[in-house]
Amino acid sequence: MTQKERVDLILYNGVVLTINDSDEIIDDGAVAIKENQIIDLGKSEDIKNKYEAKKEIDVNHGVIMPGLVNTHTHLAMSIFRGLADDLSLDKWWNEHMFPAEEKFINKDSAYWGSLLSCGELILSGTTTFCDMYFFEKETGYAAEKAGIRGIIGEGIVSEFGDEKEIFANKMELTAGLLDKFKESSLVLIAIEPHSCYTCSKEILIKSKRFADENDLLFVTHLSETKKEVEDIKNKLGMSPVEYLDKIGVLDERTLAAHCVWLSGEDIEILKKRGVKVSHCPNSNMKLASGVAPVGKLFEGRVTVSLGTDGSASNNNLDMFSEMSNASKLAKVSTLNPEIVSAQETVRMATINGAKALGMEKEIGSLEIGKKADIIVLDFNKPHLVPVYDYYSHLVYSVSGNDVQFCIVDGKVIMENRKILSFDINKAMDKVKEISEKVKAF
Amino acid sequence: MTQKERVDLILYNGVVLTINDSDEIIDDGAVAIKENQIIDLGKSEDIKNKYEAKKEIDVNHGVIMPGLVNTHTHLAMSIFRGLADDLSLDKWWNEHMFPAEEKFINKDSAYWGSLLSCGELILSGTTTFCDMYFFEKETGYAAEKAGIRGIIGEGIVSEFGDEKEIFANKMELTAGLLDKFKESSLVLIAIEPHSCYTCSKEILIKSKRFADENDLLFVTHLSETKKEVEDIKNKLGMSPVEYLDKIGVLDERTLAAHCVWLSGEDIEILKKRGVKVSHCPNSNMKLASGVAPVGKLFEGRVTVSLGTDGSASNNNLDMFSEMSNASKLAKVSTLNPEIVSAQETVRMATINGAKALGMEKEIGSLEIGKKADIIVLDFNKPHLVPVYDYYSHLVYSVSGNDVQFCIVDGKVIMENRKILSFDINKAMDKVKEISEKVKAF
Repeated sequence: MTQKERVDLILYNGVVLTINDSDEIIDDGAVAIKENQIIDLGKSEDIKNKYEAKKEIDVNHGVIMPGLVNTHTHLAMSIFRGLADDLSLDKWWNEHMFPAEEKFINKDSAYWGSLLSCGELILSGTTTFCDMYFFEKETGYAAEKAGIRGIIGEGIVSEFGDEKEIFANKMELTAGLLDKFKESSLVLIAIEPHSCYTCSKEILIKSKRFADENDLLFVTHLSETKKEVEDIKNKLGMSPVEYLDKIGVLDERTLAAHCVWLSGEDIEILKKRGVKVSHCPNSNMKLASGVAPVGKLFEGRVTVSLGTDGSASNNNLDMFSEMSNASKLAKVSTLNPEIVSAQETVRMATINGAKALGMEKEIGSLEIGKKADIIVLDFNKPHLVPVYDYYSHLVYSVSGNDVQFCIVDGKVIMENRKILSFDINKAMDKVKEISEKVKAF
Repeated sequence: MTQKERVDLILYNGVVLTINDSDEIIDDGAVAIKENQIIDLGKSEDIKNKYEAKKEIDVNHGVIMPGLVNTHTHLAMSIFRGLADDLSLDKWWNEHMFPAEEKFINKDSAYWGSLLSCGELILSGTTTFCDMYFFEKETGYAAEKAGIRGIIGEGIVSEFGDEKEIFANKMELTAGLLDKFKESSLVLIAIEPHSCYTCSKEILIKSKRFADENDLLFVTHLSETKKEVEDIKNKLGMSPVEYLDKIGVLDERTLAAHCVWLSGEDIEILKKRGVKVSHCPNSNMKLASGVAPVGKLFEGRVTVSLGTDGSASNNNLDMFSEMSNASKLAKVSTLNPEIVSAQETVRMATINGAKALGMEKEIGSLEIGKKADIIVLDFNKPHLVPVYDYYSHLVYSVSGNDVQFCIVDGKVIMENRKILSFDINKAMDKVKEISEKVKAF
């Protein structure tokens, strides 16, 4: 009898959706994991014959797939979930969010808000997020505590106060992040000027220069609302996309969130520059921002990924709900049920997310040599019976609650709906405490 | 010490959302149930002092609210869930659903498909449904087995075959339903001609006459797609709403599903006649039917309720997802975040549903004397922390999986996610068996 190779973890007896280039599906499949990598995948029988593992999980005909990649969020904002809804963006921001942030966002609340959100992400199948907010070091600590992969970046807003001072401070904070997380296997840093309407041209250019010098992702909000586009056009005589292109900050290392109001020329520019888009349909719907032209972005071969936005504007971080509405909103807004198929939508939430973050060699699909960021879904539920098409179920029937296991960087951080990496009850209690102060405000 | 009044069930230590006329919320509240009725509600302490119950459930700060009312569905179609997606309505229907129905819908599949769907409804908080399909007696049996409240009606389609024969057969089936379920505390009967494009004028008129003579609800699909409206206009020179009004079938006992393509005049007619609408946003989005003008229907004071449609076109029966998209789709389609508020949306899914079915004196809110159709949601979950506004969470953060208890007609039929009334695993297995035959077709 041949000696079996020792590995750390085997998931078997599942349906493996690889999301590789040919969208291969392995029935009765298994994945073998050693340290933080996928070292093999194939039929359960073959994998079990080849390897023996410290831990073997029978997933009972569940779906084994890449962890989801949420490319736009503001994790700490969970402390404001449901604080102000059904309001115009202007009232939401100026009368509620901005004063609340001024008063209640600090190191402590940013940590606990982020940790609670990490728990929510893990429980709903997200294994990598890209965050923009304040006190991002706390968000990085929360990600490491929770064992989830994250790209974090200090939101840069130059419109209030002395611009040079703000920028110097943000770059100092960013240098601190780069130093603090340089050995981290989970946390990466990005440069994240908030938008072209809250940052000066100089800040945008300097931010991009800093990003390029340090090989970092450049993340910004772009063309989210009609008002933003009209204001920029009135002020500068061009669209936000044209403006950012003109000042030279758009390239394949740029991730633009929202991209709702785009002209044909804008889409051409995004395509030419290789800009990646984070589409946030639930936020765009709830805040009535508008409908991003996902079908046209697909036609233009622009990489579209998915983001939840913060849970103050969504109001949850469930990427399965985001998938569902990415597909359905595109269909109803064009009266074309054939666009943005379930299969394309699953790619948006996985491999396209990885591409958007420049991490497609490491995550976003189940392939030998990639990081073991994997989720397992329990399909033995009334709302998932019967199964004719796995992609259809993932987009139109599943909710985040159907995720049964979550594995990041080879570690099982959630098993049978229990988070193993940290005490989620403590995080819930801490955020409830913070919310009591917000309510009293 | 005063003798306490004996009741059957007390739910206590919860937040009671009554959905009564003043939307009263009782913090630290309780509900007392005797037989199938709510006999009291108030503060937990007061209720516990006044009553003693055979069974008392501490809901641990969960939300106690009326069970949801799903006013449009085709329960047996769960056997086709995910069979055909991302297709034009024409292809979906003519190339997939219609041939599949011809071959696979029979008494056996209708029963198991309906029973599976009842399980799904119960697990996601729906306590009353309104169904239109074939073999409705089986759907009625399934509802009784599951212990859920349902209005059932044979779908009448006169376009294929001899019209008189079809109608006679359907009325015979309906008489059978009326007889079979006349003693039922859960099942009611409706008259349900499919639509004005699949039924002749005579059938529509005779159906309405039969409904009126027997004091039954008249249910039909109306103005679901642009094509339907254009075809009717081309053929008859008026809109489907105008046509149904002209032939006299619209009144306060008419429930019209979809109502996507409505003119201002159509809305006026619906208002004048007191027609109730079943809005199905997820189906309308996924099939790209269009966006129903919910804001305008509200302005017109038309009663709008919510339906999931069948799970072959949705693809699940989660009314919380329906609520979320009812609100968000209305917002994004009008670029107005202030319309269709969370609070209004919860009313659509509860008391408006009851009104749509003519059952507002019995269900749809928690009030003394009403039937005890109640759900409890577990709010002690990461994605529901913190809480500033219960309605906001119900619409924007909750999913059906958060429902912890389901009580219909005074009976606890689901407790801690376990269905008590029937064997859901058997229903899943049966539907899986049926789906194997469909796959082989």
